[in-house]
Amino acid sequence: MTARKIILDCDPGHDDAIAMLMANAHPNIDLLGITIVAGNQTLAKTTTNALNVAQLLDINTKIYPGMPQPLVREQVVAGNVHGKTGLDGPTFPALHRTAEKKNGVQFIIDTLMASDGDVTLVPTGPLTNIATAMRTEPLIIPKIQEIVLMGGAYGTGNFTPSAEFNIFADPEAAHVVFKSGVPIVMMGLDLTNQTICTPDIIERMEAIGNKAGKLFGDLMRFTLKTQFEEFGLKAGPIHDATTIGYLIDPSLFETQDMFVEVDINRGPCYGRTVCDENSVLKQQPNAKVGKGINHDGFFDLVADCIKTY
Amino acid sequence: MTARKIILDCDPGHDDAIAMLMANAHPNIDLLGITIVAGNQTLAKTTTNALNVAQLLDINTKIYPGMPQPLVREQVVAGNVHGKTGLDGPTFPALHRTAEKKNGVQFIIDTLMASDGDVTLVPTGPLTNIATAMRTEPLIIPKIQEIVLMGGAYGTGNFTPSAEFNIFADPEAAHVVFKSGVPIVMMGLDLTNQTICTPDIIERMEAIGNKAGKLFGDLMRFTLKTQFEEFGLKAGPIHDATTIGYLIDPSLFETQDMFVEVDINRGPCYGRTVCDENSVLKQQPNAKVGKGINHDGFFDLVADCIKTY
Amino acid sequence: MTARKIILDCDPGHDDAIAMLMANAHPNIDLLGITIVAGNQTLAKTTTNALNVAQLLDINTKIYPGMPQPLVREQVVAGNVHGKTGLDGPTFPALHRTAEKKNGVQFIIDTLMASDGDVTLVPTGPLTNIATAMRTEPLIIPKIQEIVLMGGAYGTGNFTPSAEFNIFADPEAAHVVFKSGVPIVMMGLDLTNQTICTPDIIERMEAIGNKAGKLFGDLMRFTLKTQFEEFGLKAGPIHDATTIGYLIDPSLFETQDMFVEVDINRGPCYGRTVCDENSVLKQQPNAKVGKGINHDGFFDLVADCIKTY
Amino acid sequence: MTARKIILDCDPGHDDAIAMLMANAHPNIDLLGITIVAGNQTLAKTTTNALNVAQLLDINTKIYPGMPQPLVREQVVAGNVHGKTGLDGPTFPALHRTAEKKNGVQFIIDTLMASDGDVTLVPTGPLTNIATAMRTEPLIIPKIQEIVLMGGAYGTGNFTPSAEFNIFADPEAAHVVFKSGVPIVMMGLDLTNQTICTPDIIERMEAIGNKAGKLFGDLMRFTLKTQFEEFGLKAGPIHDATTIGYLIDPSLFETQDMFVEVDINRGPCYGRTVCDENSVLKQQPNAKVGKGINHDGFFDLVADCIKTY
Repeated sequence: MTARKIILDCDPGHDDAIAMLMANAHPNIDLLGITIVAGNQTLAKTTTNALNVAQLLDINTKIYPGMPQPLVREQVVAGNVHGKTGLDGPTFPALHRTAEKKNGVQFIIDTLMASDGDVTLVPTGPLTNIATAMRTEPLIIPKIQEIVLMGGAYGTGNFTPSAEFNIFADPEAAHVVFKSGVPIVMMGLDLTNQTICTPDIIERMEAIGNKAGKLFGDLMRFTLKTQFEEFGLKAGPIHDATTIGYLIDPSLFETQDMFVEVDINRGPCYGRTVCDENSVLKQQPNAKVGKGINHDGFFDLVADCIKTY
Repeated sequence: MTARKIILDCDPGHDDAIAMLMANAHPNIDLLGITIVAGNQTLAKTTTNALNVAQLLDINTKIYPGMPQPLVREQVVAGNVHGKTGLDGPTFPALHRTAEKKNGVQFIIDTLMASDGDVTLVPTGPLTNIATAMRTEPLIIPKIQEIVLMGGAYGTGNFTPSAEFNIFADPEAAHVVFKSGVPIVMMGLDLTNQTICTPDIIERMEAIGNKAGKLFGDLMRFTLKTQFEEFGLKAGPIHDATTIGYLIDPSLFETQDMFVEVDINRGPCYGRTVCDENSVLKQQPNAKVGKGINHDGFFDLVADCIKTY
Repeated sequence: MTARKIILDCDPGHDDAIAMLMANAHPNIDLLGITIVAGNQTLAKTTTNALNVAQLLDINTKIYPGMPQPLVREQVVAGNVHGKTGLDGPTFPALHRTAEKKNGVQFIIDTLMASDGDVTLVPTGPLTNIATAMRTEPLIIPKIQEIVLMGGAYGTGNFTPSAEFNIFADPEAAHVVFKSGVPIVMMGLDLTNQTICTPDIIERMEAIGNKAGKLFGDLMRFTLKTQFEEFGLKAGPIHDATTIGYLIDPSLFETQDMFVEVDINRGPCYGRTVCDENSVLKQQPNAKVGKGINHDGFFDLVADCIKTY
Repeated sequence: MTARKIILDCDPGHDDAIAMLMANAHPNIDLLGITIVAGNQTLAKTTTNALNVAQLLDINTKIYPGMPQPLVREQVVAGNVHGKTGLDGPTFPALHRTAEKKNGVQFIIDTLMASDGDVTLVPTGPLTNIATAMRTEPLIIPKIQEIVLMGGAYGTGNFTPSAEFNIFADPEAAHVVFKSGVPIVMMGLDLTNQTICTPDIIERMEAIGNKAGKLFGDLMRFTLKTQFEEFGLKAGPIHDATTIGYLIDPSLFETQDMFVEVDINRGPCYGRTVCDENSVLKQQPNAKVGKGINHDGFFDLVADCIKTY
């Protein structure tokens, strides 16, 4: 298997950090660049978080900050889940890594235009960078091999009853992406909520005994704390990392082809990914939607990635 | 237990017919009247169907036709599921029963205004009659003991990806009802899809050997056929009958208090019952939403009702 | 000319009262009944107001209260313009007239169903009664000769920047009426704001020296006061009376055929009558929309009507 | 008077070309750059048109192409008004001028960030470039002195009954701009439709006898033709040029402070600039909205500008 060339477009964020860790570690992934978007926190904070993680783990991939605000709506962040910094929990050494001057949106456009159609976009935050790139340079659209994203739900949302945070934070951008015609793999809450990380899993990763295992522990212990305080849960999912997991080993995942559209009406379903699970609309599917995951296989993969550090 | 006084507001429809059968049969229910609404088919057809069922089963309760069209939207019917008549399958003898002259909406108003607040409304079709009654005479609202309805879903819909048929057929009426302040029990698809009626259950009911058992069989054999043809299923649910089942024996049901609002924006979630399953909106719940049912207990109840004929 | 048979459907309201005065007075109008709707004030108040006016002016036409609330939205009233009673200004003797028991919606249905298609509806309040009648008994629709209504605007609204009060108070009802296919004459603000009633006109009507002239004066002096206080204007329009004026003498009016639809999206244009003044949509017109009025001719007509009392 | 520093953001377009002509000509304007947006035609065509006009008139200001598509909606162009090229009518010599490599959005951001808050943006097309700049770098917002734009209407629209073309072509971008807090001058159809250019005006400009006068004639003769064919008019407005006219001599214009919001609901008012002409919402105004223009004074100004070539 040739390594999949990807751009990781993220808003770290605890689970984004684990996606970075895995994307950098595994030989099946060729990480061309990391672009940053506002989402879990402001762009300044998510950029700093990405730089901190990259510096700690010696991830040499360049980091390009992109859009600091959603396309149209007023900005929302997820301080309730990810804390004041957006990556509360770990403590990092003094930061020396710096972000690139080139805008993340421009990096996406330039990389795709120079490619042979073999680059996959992996957004784990709001889709603002991707949508802006598509609207700034529509010629990139046929160049994108696939978009493997974390976002949405066909069941219940987490930020509103209808909507998952990444999509709710920029519904109009998600609307652009889902209508673009690019093949999409959507890892929504229906699947990602199955990646429950319990204390024994945390201990297993920490026991690997390196800095990556420690980082995993620091991140997930904080996640467990907020999951407990916000939602009364005793364990927490690692939503974003499923995208990288899928690209490394799709056999761990069950997906279903569905037609998906994003509700941009400003009512109670604003930001919902409307998934035609039963094909009642008789529309051509535009996404593979995640339904099931091999929980143990997935965490074995996480452990394999941690061990490389 | 005193019998619960109810008005059954329905659009027969196969599962409505079984709701009629049960409501008439069980001593826990005091069936004050049957009001008819357009839904599964036109009002003329749903009225004829109700009269045919009542005549066949000697149900002496009066039948009042109500609204032939939804409040605002253009009319849709469910010919794909219930056939051309709205009750395809059984053959009925020549019809002698006639409907009342009084409009169903007026019957609901008059009955409630004359009551001591001990009347429950049981809508198993679109909520047009109920909403029209509420808007025509708002004084009925505090007189309604409870509304136990079949409609909606917090998971996937059946008529669109977002919406269940009864709500989709008149979202504005549902909006009025869910905002009315009346205590609501909502039997949505999440629960009603659990009432799978397999061929062995049909045979069990037919084996009771009376006209009610035969009617059940004729109805459900047609339902199984359309469920197979439309959705590829080998068995079919008896959605509407869960409302009566709940009123007879609530211990068979698991519900959860939720805040529910109906999306009346004309986008992809038009007609969705947005249920705040995880209380993320911190709103006061306005409905008990059905989550689970004791499948065997429920069909035992159906059998008990059939045996009374 | 045969007298036009009409049902006046109103929510008095100062200008509604003048519409009553004129409809009762002029031989070109055969006033079959007066139905009342909530609008300028609650149904109880608008009914009392209609009864007071009818008693004062010996208008013997029966008065039928209809819908107390809009079809779907939450109720709004126009206390800022019409005062606490909805008809502040005049003082009326003790009220002996009583309203009919039959609901106004039912009166509309019964009258139309018994007619030969020669009855015109004249709504000067929210369209709740008309829409409810249409949805309760769709067979009335082809029986309506014409609907001559006061409501809407193709220019600026008065209750919001986009919407005129009568339509804003029940946009969903207006949506039903404008989509019904019945020929409509729409007297919107663009025309009705031209019926400026200045102090000299008030004096002219009072000088006629009868109870109708005095009522006109008492009503319009209050209107001038609120128009001044709310909008800084020194004179006030008699919106609703233009409908009756048009039916008595259409030659006083300039209208233009337009396609009109009502915006029921809950944004800043909720309740706007979207009028395709320049036919850019290439749709079949469904309304004659008032553009101009012969101001002097109109007030001559008002004076003629007042003189009959 | 110090010259006003402006960036002209346009989509030529006949009236955009005249705005270019005037902005380049008059000493009251310091034209820092011309950015191009898709609108009247595709970005490729509007860029070519701008280059052709600049080459013909020796306008040395640099030209920066920006966004080729609206933020969220599907693209619409105005081929019916501006022809296949977007600037049908004139014939231009072979094109040697070339556009800058830097994106127009980036030029706007860089220019504003390097400024002392004394740069005014003058958009005469859809607001896509401006909104994208604001969302890409929110720090520019307090740096913008003013936005003087052509777009919208508080009366009737031209592309739909509710909406003017520039706003309809990207309602979401307009929503971002009108909510940004930047002081706005809005030249909508209410004002721009008053800039009727009749054949005698065309002859007057042509009689000046230079290339600018000839270009004016070639442009406006085509405009008159399409205005006649599309709308049955015998003369046509020069919408976009009013923005430059206002910046040169505001005394020619009457404006009114209003609160303006853009309807982004996808109903019949999608893209309407909802202007609170009568302050019924009691909101703080965010725009000076054009109401009247000194027609003769304006065309004297146009002639003055033409004479400089």
